[in-house]
Amino acid sequence: MAEELFLGIDIGGTDTKIGIVNGAGSILEKRSIKTESKDGPGQLADRVYIECQTLANCMKSSLNDIKAAGIGAPGVIDVKNGVVIFSPNLQEWKNAPVAEMFNKRLNMICALENDANVAAWGEKWAGAGKSIAAKSMVMITLGTGIGGGVIINDDIWHGRDNVAGEIGHMIIEVNGVKCGCGGFGCVEAYASATAVARRFKEAANDGMDITAEDVYNKAAKGDELAAKIMRDTGAYLGVAIVNIMHILNPDVITIGGGMSAARTFLEPSILTEINKRAYKVAGERTKVVFAELGNDSGIIGAAGWARNILETSA
Amino acid sequence: MAEELFLGIDIGGTDTKIGIVNGAGSILEKRSIKTESKDGPGQLADRVYIECQTLANCMKSSLNDIKAAGIGAPGVIDVKNGVVIFSPNLQEWKNAPVAEMFNKRLNMICALENDANVAAWGEKWAGAGKSIAAKSMVMITLGTGIGGGVIINDDIWHGRDNVAGEIGHMIIEVNGVKCGCGGFGCVEAYASATAVARRFKEAANDGMDITAEDVYNKAAKGDELAAKIMRDTGAYLGVAIVNIMHILNPDVITIGGGMSAARTFLEPSILTEINKRAYKVAGERTKVVFAELGNDSGIIGAAGWARNILETSA
Repeated sequence: MAEELFLGIDIGGTDTKIGIVNGAGSILEKRSIKTESKDGPGQLADRVYIECQTLANCMKSSLNDIKAAGIGAPGVIDVKNGVVIFSPNLQEWKNAPVAEMFNKRLNMICALENDANVAAWGEKWAGAGKSIAAKSMVMITLGTGIGGGVIINDDIWHGRDNVAGEIGHMIIEVNGVKCGCGGFGCVEAYASATAVARRFKEAANDGMDITAEDVYNKAAKGDELAAKIMRDTGAYLGVAIVNIMHILNPDVITIGGGMSAARTFLEPSILTEINKRAYKVAGERTKVVFAELGNDSGIIGAAGWARNILETSA
Repeated sequence: MAEELFLGIDIGGTDTKIGIVNGAGSILEKRSIKTESKDGPGQLADRVYIECQTLANCMKSSLNDIKAAGIGAPGVIDVKNGVVIFSPNLQEWKNAPVAEMFNKRLNMICALENDANVAAWGEKWAGAGKSIAAKSMVMITLGTGIGGGVIINDDIWHGRDNVAGEIGHMIIEVNGVKCGCGGFGCVEAYASATAVARRFKEAANDGMDITAEDVYNKAAKGDELAAKIMRDTGAYLGVAIVNIMHILNPDVITIGGGMSAARTFLEPSILTEINKRAYKVAGERTKVVFAELGNDSGIIGAAGWARNILETSA
């Protein structure tokens, strides 16, 4: 019997990654193209279609052999209707029926989802949640901002208005610093890459410009201030994680995104906060793990989500 | 056809309330007895059994006509096995098979649940969530402490270790004041009745002892300091509510418990924080409402939960 195959399409503000994924969550072929978001979703769908054909050809297969496609896109998604309602990273894409546009080209079921949600699904299915067969998971994605995804009862939880999982805007300081969202005291304003760079600059107060990666590298080389900033970042994340334990008590909380590479500094402070603040039973039993799929979580998660849609609707 | 009847048993640290509830969520008969928690759950079950017979007699009915009983108890409950694992309010009840003890006396399906969870279920079924047919709800119970319940997809969400819904211990100030749970900066340490009294005493600094109810009464009579304390309490709650919107984006967030009587002061500040901090779509569409069932939410919710168990297992 031929292997079941799924397409995973991970649309980002800059790049769109495309892969063919098997039923076990392994990528068989993948490539990346520029998103050129000003072209609109129809043109992107045209270009993705061509890439998908190439990928299938590379495998001596055809698009007809692929069961379904999952599409992850940033922003607020109307999942039921497959529409990108609004996306800060794809500003021209307003109320865009993206699932339908891809379906017309690819001629298969196309499931549109929020990018953080599919990344969470990928980690649950084939990454950090796999070995413990997690049924509930919250993923926190650390990058320029902080995103997240919530999985409950083996299903992505969207909430009433498709805006659940905005972990980055959980308030951890009532009168805290201003956040990009317009609010203040959000965990994103303390623990995102942007916030790490800002907090280091404020503390060093030497007029030098610096990125979060620079702060990490300094810390790795023994710079005490940089190490403190990274450790404090872990403590802020630890507080957010304890809050998730108190509200949802999920099987697993997964930390992913580019800044999760700073694990050496983040993890000990996260665990310290959990020990100090969490309920004993939740603190001991909830797994707090780092993501395993790296940049592939979007492709794998989108494909896995398409597979799940197909299975649960069968 | 005879009306469907359910028993709702709401076990508190001091009093145990018992009621017969119909399929529409109305209490037909109810009474209250002392819990005498040192006697242990078996003795309480004996006394509840007698009261239940009396209630049924009052209705010219018998226990045989009652379909199932729901039991709400404070503490950590192993819902699957019907066991009270541990309860700060019922200190002798450790690993107590309460569902089985009640089942032996009442001779009907007995579903044991956490008391805050059944109160939430009651509000969803027959109170604040009824008119909008809410499928997801978070209830915040304001009393001496702050409790909560989470309902997702028409089901109580327990989490991995039956400790989900601990809304009171959501941290809103990283380095905030010490909380009874051992942590610090929890919303309970700012917005519970205990915290309201403490914050007023600290602000007045006149050596007078005062309760949260006194603070409310002073505020209602125009005392500006008391009014400010109450308004700030609403702001702390507003922050917790915005966090729930960001993480879960539920259909409705319900505020109950004794201190919700201070609605006049709490509600405007809650709404101000939502306007300032929530995502527009969630802030506008998520209903934030006050509980409607008052002290009956435990009886009605326990009975309704038993009804739900019966229906979903049929």
